[in-house]
Amino acid sequence: MPTSAAVPTALIVHAHPEPDSFSTAQMATAAQSLRGAGYQVDILDLYNDAWAPVLAREEFPPVDGPFKPQAEQMRAVRDGTLDEAVKDHLERLLAADLLVLSFPLWWFSLPAILKGWIDRVFVMGAVFGGDHGLFGDAALAGKRAMLLFTTGGSSEAFRPGGAFGAVDDFLFHIHRGMLEFVGYQVLEPVITYGPAHLTDEERAVALKAVKESVARTATAPLSAVG
Amino acid sequence: MPTSAAVPTALIVHAHPEPDSFSTAQMATAAQSLRGAGYQVDILDLYNDAWAPVLAREEFPPVDGPFKPQAEQMRAVRDGTLDEAVKDHLERLLAADLLVLSFPLWWFSLPAILKGWIDRVFVMGAVFGGDHGLFGDAALAGKRAMLLFTTGGSSEAFRPGGAFGAVDDFLFHIHRGMLEFVGYQVLEPVITYGPAHLTDEERAVALKAVKESVARTATAPLSAVG
Repeated sequence: MPTSAAVPTALIVHAHPEPDSFSTAQMATAAQSLRGAGYQVDILDLYNDAWAPVLAREEFPPVDGPFKPQAEQMRAVRDGTLDEAVKDHLERLLAADLLVLSFPLWWFSLPAILKGWIDRVFVMGAVFGGDHGLFGDAALAGKRAMLLFTTGGSSEAFRPGGAFGAVDDFLFHIHRGMLEFVGYQVLEPVITYGPAHLTDEERAVALKAVKESVARTATAPLSAVG
Repeated sequence: MPTSAAVPTALIVHAHPEPDSFSTAQMATAAQSLRGAGYQVDILDLYNDAWAPVLAREEFPPVDGPFKPQAEQMRAVRDGTLDEAVKDHLERLLAADLLVLSFPLWWFSLPAILKGWIDRVFVMGAVFGGDHGLFGDAALAGKRAMLLFTTGGSSEAFRPGGAFGAVDDFLFHIHRGMLEFVGYQVLEPVITYGPAHLTDEERAVALKAVKESVARTATAPLSAVG
């Protein structure tokens, strides 16, 4: 558990279209596990909330001339004119000691609705850039993040030299480019490979494994962040 | 130029919110270059077309029980019930000898609107899976694809050992996980680093470089696809 004196908070951002999916069950299991480990858990269910993922001119005050997304984000932070939904999610992000991105791996990356949550809520000027730097100097330095996901393919396909390629190589753009970039210490991902092919019994075993992995990962001592 | 007897076709899928951006100018330059190289060029401008990127239950015929995206894609291909917009884009994708994804690199990946184009249009059962396999056995084997993008950071930051990390490592999830996965031979990406910091003169030079790179890349002999 983090050393913070207050109750630590975890923000789970979940992106699966089906409430009865294994992915959603996995998210609920992780939430339960985190609560058991002493976390206060905040959940954003992007499909359920009909999150709009497209970063566009319309969410900012009118501007003359070409729309430059990062410049507009900086200006909105400075002027207090961020879109209300973005502002709400940003506050919940900044309040969280642990960020958990929960999703099915689609095309070896985030589903579009979750990618667009990053595009819109990892606001330049509030999360990195402006008064903040990058990586260890960004706003979320000292906090932790982890990926919680399912795959279509088997664990064999995701081994180094496997039919697809090494899972760590696919995750590099998220771990390095999104999470470390804004300061997070990245924890080991919790992955269930190919849940579509599990029997009910195997599914229960898989959820138990998720519960244990999340508890173990989320309660490990916070190591020094470079 | 591809050895196909007919006029080769390039499909450019573009994803920048600003018509007056460097990214959009870069896309127009690439289109011009491809036409000069003998291609018939088809362009999908996702922001302009207000493309809806979220893969969800609603685009498929009603189904009892849990929504399983890939199963529904397979069923829609089999029954001829694909969403009209998806069907149109899929046909244009399958007709193209060369796919060009044109975008600003956001969070070391595709903007959400473009990720959601992949999520919805790279349909299981039509592009891979079902009657098709993966990689060399997928529907787009023998065709070529390339990334055309801009970055916020400098080329130095994207070198191996650079402040961000090697650009090829960030692109792996797209090159391997999206393009090779459906059969494409992946061409060298055409990248303009940090166009926001260019003078007008440097910008003109950068666009000229794009024109030449695209022409050179798109007209190289098609090498054997593994």
